Amino acid sequence: MATYGYHHDKQQHLNRLRRIEGQVRGLQRMVEEDSYCIDILTQTSAVNKALRSFALSLLDEHLKHCVAHAVANGGTEAEEKVREASEAIARLVRS
Amino acid sequence: MATYGYHHDKQQHLNRLRRIEGQVRGLQRMVEEDSYCIDILTQTSAVNKALRSFALSLLDEHLKHCVAHAVANGGTEAEEKVREASEAIARLVRS
Amino acid sequence: MATYGYHHDKQQHLNRLRRIEGQVRGLQRMVEEDSYCIDILTQTSAVNKALRSFALSLLDEHLKHCVAHAVANGGTEAEEKVREASEAIARLVRS
Amino acid sequence: MATYGYHHDKQQHLNRLRRIEGQVRGLQRMVEEDSYCIDILTQTSAVNKALRSFALSLLDEHLKHCVAHAVANGGTEAEEKVREASEAIARLVRS
Repeated sequence: MATYGYHHDKQQHLNRLRRIEGQVRGLQRMVEEDSYCIDILTQTSAVNKALRSFALSLLDEHLKHCVAHAVANGGTEAEEKVREASEAIARLVRS
Repeated sequence: MATYGYHHDKQQHLNRLRRIEGQVRGLQRMVEEDSYCIDILTQTSAVNKALRSFALSLLDEHLKHCVAHAVANGGTEAEEKVREASEAIARLVRS
Repeated sequence: MATYGYHHDKQQHLNRLRRIEGQVRGLQRMVEEDSYCIDILTQTSAVNKALRSFALSLLDEHLKHCVAHAVANGGTEAEEKVREASEAIARLVRS
Repeated sequence: MATYGYHHDKQQHLNRLRRIEGQVRGLQRMVEEDSYCIDILTQTSAVNKALRSFALSLLDEHLKHCVAHAVANGGTEAEEKVREASEAIARLVRS
């Protein structure tokens, strides 16, 4: 069975994502209750930061485990993993 | 009763936020089902983009309505609204 | 003669941009001297931050002067200025 | 003599950085000639994009060469390289 690097911190990742889900529901309440635009924007920036932190910790584990493992094995799979990671980083930086 | 600029598109904003909530729950499922890290990262970048688009459309309406209204009235409230909007933009750019 | 909002701080903006130009030349020296990749990346992130700060201060003055002025005059020019500012903010957030 | 991954494309990196330097000098000219704020902002976003592309290509080579090399050798240096790369990615994402 394949398990990936982030598997070790699975529960921590799920907790993070549940908090983010709660924050997004908080945004919905703010819109429903006609909160002030600037307050909604401030909260949206906070959710964006939380999502980026989640992505960065996932990426860190991916590099530590999946990529490092592939590189240790060498060959084309190693190259493929590095290329794939680079592309994911580019998407993250541009998102 | 105070209503803000985004009030006009309230339902559209709520629909967007519900889709984003669904995307965040999708991320949780991916983590629970041990999906491949890169696929989770790709999906996280998509959620980030959706959140930014939400923030940008909210900000656009805020400038069009709240800020424009305050500026038309003039005085210190106008200055305060512009300062506040600039700070929200800075937080958004840095988030 | 038209002068724009940032005119008041023109010298300050030029000083900032000259510092940024110096930082970019510093990056060239680092590459020429085979500096360590991570050090070049750290310096590149610093240049990005400096550029964003420049853009945010320019935008702040644009909102305070050009947009506020157009809005005070009203009509389609006001709408056009707000639309234009929103689009510039979106480009900045996504850059 | 230590040479890093980006060494192979050194000339290409230098060319990129010289173009970016030219773009920053173009921004100075725009400010000096009182160009329209929105046009300066558009150009600033373009420079930011160019800098990010430079950083991403440098990072890609760093992962392909320096990190992969360290990981192949194993031990604490491998861990250190991955940690260092993760931190550089985080700075880049947040810049």
